[in-house]
Amino acid sequence: MLLEALYHVPRDKWAYAYNPSTIHLRVRTKRDDVEQVFAMTGDKYDWQATYQELAMEKAAHDAMFDYWELAVKPKYKRLSYAFKLMAGSETVYMQDSGIGYDPPTPPGELYEFPYIHEIDVFKVPEWAKQAVFYQIMPERFANGDPSNDPEHTEPWGGIPKSDNYFGGDLQGILDHLDDLSDLGINAIYFTPLFTSPSNHKYDTVDYKNVDPQFGDNDLLKQLVNACHERGIRVVLDAVFNHCSELFPPFQDVLKYGQNSKYIDWFHINEFPASIKNGVPTYDTFGFFGNMPKFNTANPDVKAYLLGVAEYWIKEINLDGWRLDVANEVDHHFWRDFRQIVKKANPEAYIIGEVWSDSLNWLLGDQFDSVMNYPFADKVLTFFNGGIDGYSFSNDMGALIMRYPQQTNEVIFNMLCSHDTPRLLTSVGNDKRKLKLCVVFLFTYIGTPCIFYGDEVGLSGNGDPDCRKCMIWDPDKQDRELYDFYKLMIALRKKHNALREGRFRFLHADSHDPCIIYERIDEKGHFTIWMNNTEKKRTLSHPMNTNDWCDALTGERVMPDKGTMNISLDSYGYRILFRKIK
Amino acid sequence: MLLEALYHVPRDKWAYAYNPSTIHLRVRTKRDDVEQVFAMTGDKYDWQATYQELAMEKAAHDAMFDYWELAVKPKYKRLSYAFKLMAGSETVYMQDSGIGYDPPTPPGELYEFPYIHEIDVFKVPEWAKQAVFYQIMPERFANGDPSNDPEHTEPWGGIPKSDNYFGGDLQGILDHLDDLSDLGINAIYFTPLFTSPSNHKYDTVDYKNVDPQFGDNDLLKQLVNACHERGIRVVLDAVFNHCSELFPPFQDVLKYGQNSKYIDWFHINEFPASIKNGVPTYDTFGFFGNMPKFNTANPDVKAYLLGVAEYWIKEINLDGWRLDVANEVDHHFWRDFRQIVKKANPEAYIIGEVWSDSLNWLLGDQFDSVMNYPFADKVLTFFNGGIDGYSFSNDMGALIMRYPQQTNEVIFNMLCSHDTPRLLTSVGNDKRKLKLCVVFLFTYIGTPCIFYGDEVGLSGNGDPDCRKCMIWDPDKQDRELYDFYKLMIALRKKHNALREGRFRFLHADSHDPCIIYERIDEKGHFTIWMNNTEKKRTLSHPMNTNDWCDALTGERVMPDKGTMNISLDSYGYRILFRKIK
Repeated sequence: MLLEALYHVPRDKWAYAYNPSTIHLRVRTKRDDVEQVFAMTGDKYDWQATYQELAMEKAAHDAMFDYWELAVKPKYKRLSYAFKLMAGSETVYMQDSGIGYDPPTPPGELYEFPYIHEIDVFKVPEWAKQAVFYQIMPERFANGDPSNDPEHTEPWGGIPKSDNYFGGDLQGILDHLDDLSDLGINAIYFTPLFTSPSNHKYDTVDYKNVDPQFGDNDLLKQLVNACHERGIRVVLDAVFNHCSELFPPFQDVLKYGQNSKYIDWFHINEFPASIKNGVPTYDTFGFFGNMPKFNTANPDVKAYLLGVAEYWIKEINLDGWRLDVANEVDHHFWRDFRQIVKKANPEAYIIGEVWSDSLNWLLGDQFDSVMNYPFADKVLTFFNGGIDGYSFSNDMGALIMRYPQQTNEVIFNMLCSHDTPRLLTSVGNDKRKLKLCVVFLFTYIGTPCIFYGDEVGLSGNGDPDCRKCMIWDPDKQDRELYDFYKLMIALRKKHNALREGRFRFLHADSHDPCIIYERIDEKGHFTIWMNNTEKKRTLSHPMNTNDWCDALTGERVMPDKGTMNISLDSYGYRILFRKIK
Repeated sequence: MLLEALYHVPRDKWAYAYNPSTIHLRVRTKRDDVEQVFAMTGDKYDWQATYQELAMEKAAHDAMFDYWELAVKPKYKRLSYAFKLMAGSETVYMQDSGIGYDPPTPPGELYEFPYIHEIDVFKVPEWAKQAVFYQIMPERFANGDPSNDPEHTEPWGGIPKSDNYFGGDLQGILDHLDDLSDLGINAIYFTPLFTSPSNHKYDTVDYKNVDPQFGDNDLLKQLVNACHERGIRVVLDAVFNHCSELFPPFQDVLKYGQNSKYIDWFHINEFPASIKNGVPTYDTFGFFGNMPKFNTANPDVKAYLLGVAEYWIKEINLDGWRLDVANEVDHHFWRDFRQIVKKANPEAYIIGEVWSDSLNWLLGDQFDSVMNYPFADKVLTFFNGGIDGYSFSNDMGALIMRYPQQTNEVIFNMLCSHDTPRLLTSVGNDKRKLKLCVVFLFTYIGTPCIFYGDEVGLSGNGDPDCRKCMIWDPDKQDRELYDFYKLMIALRKKHNALREGRFRFLHADSHDPCIIYERIDEKGHFTIWMNNTEKKRTLSHPMNTNDWCDALTGERVMPDKGTMNISLDSYGYRILFRKIK
């Protein structure tokens, strides 16, 4: 057994309360190195009477490691534990005092989960597990009210630039809710709506008012109500890391310098606040002088921004916030943010924009979820032929093991956004590859999100090219693609197995870009077959029941002598389903 | 290179802000497997211009791993980074996206410390780094006022039982402050003082009043003032996990059952609150029915207990709190506790009672320190001959790498307490071994604490035997031992190198119980030589300066041709010092 590979710590994603009565434990071992892992568990104040040895299950793997999991329900909310690992004749013990060959002498030196406090249990909104999100940039979705168009508004469908306008607004979205209902989505994430001098509006001037180019607060309320009537949840973008240079308190600093009463609202390193040799003398988002960074540790700033967060939750019955540049804002701020937001709406869904490892914010006290850019990255790499099925299964395993299960259930999975190239462009305009990505998105663990227009064939490179106007002319829309998205959304919404079922790769081999995987819950069982190659391929896997059908067509699909053989076109896929009960 | 041994995560003790301008990074590699480790660092918004490759230092090791450390000062408070590890011709890279042989393509896929927020920086009180603590159980220290003795008080010096009394009180402590000043300690930790039916007073009835057996609130204030005048800090014991069954709100629950307005102050699982088949129907400390557990998530309970914490800080200028059964209280409570306590006294020192891995509470938002029982355990094991120097150095390395440096600087190191056997008893009444333990305590990293009476030869097995009365009769005190303690305390207080200097083992070998180690800062350099065997031993180590002297006697000690040879008696030690500037 490779002892150096063993890993467990009695905290964060390795030992956490999944709910008020259940603790999840995880242990890491070298890949294919350990045969059995047991958790030795009990209550430290009555070890003998409460002792239980419980087998752990191999839940995932990555390139180097296997991950073993167990859910334990301690009788008195307290858990002391150690691990027993077996391989051949070798038995190794892991406990708080170290790793070794001697069995522990309980209850001393054990790991401890001292007590499950309900207040510390990480709770995520149930609806987010059921949601299919649609991301809208209001400026580029639909122009429903030309009377509020900004100066120099260009004709719909022109080339997007960092600073041009096409007149999209809230009325446009209201006008198209039927289309969104037809597509089947049940949640929208809007990029920022509040007053701002830019087209993306990530530099806010007035946090309590909808930008007049988009409409007004009443119209937003009307829009959210209309969404709710259709069963569509609404999440807005909270830009609390920085504001616009035109935000009045920053203007005050520019005007009054050290005499401004707002100097502590920002991080001014040198007066006057200005750009010196290309670098602002105050902290900013990146090095953008027009986006001064807030001092969120200042109680006044904190009260102001948390007030904004609460205001919109209450004012329009908002269902959640997506947090821009979330990792550059302090943890104290986000802890209080969560408390205020969840008090205003216990079902609010909080998604942070963090591109790298985000566990720091996903321990139950800050966010529910993050934008899963690493997911997009790995999926695109795989379906573009960059890695084989084996590596892909390792990558997916590594991502799942980054976070506690609560987050995995509602992690915000997408394949592109306003900050990346469009999906179609990322797969070299190959619709077959695009579909494989989308099938994977809709049959994987987490909350899927579509970037507006992907479903009708919008393409584009990175910002600003990915921010093209939505195509509304049916002749210019890719209706075949639209129907495919619609089908995939309906399938996911119909089957809990695709949302909350257990995920497992059935086939993911070295030097083979084809994969088979399953999702299964107590009611239904899916197997998904993907030919991620240019050539036709027949994939085979043992199947010991005869009750499979094609999930999209309903056609019966029979195994042959216990083996299912699925013939797939170039970059083809097939989704099989069987009802369990 | 053993890739499975490599470890880093961009959070907790592996990547943390040491102060508002400095980030500490740590990387783990297999022991003696890697020759050089570099951190590849920069600002992600301007990677090229800010890029720096910085060599890391091997800071510690345990049985399986080496730990590399680096302090980085990023120009714009933001740090993106990866690691480059070299061994022979092999180069391995570690980054957020994984471990591999390809260099990173910055700034994507790097680890991130997104921004140093001062509010999130873990700050510990400066005075705690300079402190030498003395732990007092008031009932057993000195009886200064027989008029407040409880009924059935037994004569001073009798056999301690779980429920008997000897009349110790605050006046007794006041009377003996000269003795404590003579010993040289500069901080006291008192076990609980508030009204309670027991002799240990860990079951509180009245949180806002000193137990009448000890005196009253005015006397406590007088005592704390007298301590402060002598430069002695005072820390009290906060018992917030549970109370006494006599605590009025719990009595109300017993009396009114489900109609009590206090039912949500506790965790009542079944009414009536009672003991059923030996197990309380309400949550308790352990299974003790007389110690009902608080529901600290209840805002009323929280407000009450946090009010108590703040009250004593303000009322008597308290210097800190030691938190009883701290790991069984919820994290939300402790986060608010820290904020309230540090607001009332920014220099307050917060020590949790947690016996196992405590990192969950030591990330800057909850405690400053914990009672370092694992330290006591390892030190006693070593000086009792249970392990060799090699294992001991591994154990110490593992403990140091458990926590961020801030905690290591003020971790509450002791060799025994009211909850363990006495030091003298733990070392089989062998004063030579006791002295080795004490020398180690006073020359190691962290805040040392003496349990009252250890310095005059008190012995005793576990609770209640360790809670004997203090010996005040000079003829019965071990004055030679007392003088030794006094010398060690004075030495530590005199030299910053012993408090904040760098620690390193110079000799710690397999099959050899003798050790040599050093502490060094910019002003002074200590080497400590210990013969942890029954036989005489001469220890040798290269020393290239001739300016060493015996730190306790001042005698010059010369190396011989670049080698220092120190002859030591059975279980002997010698502390050498040289002045650097």
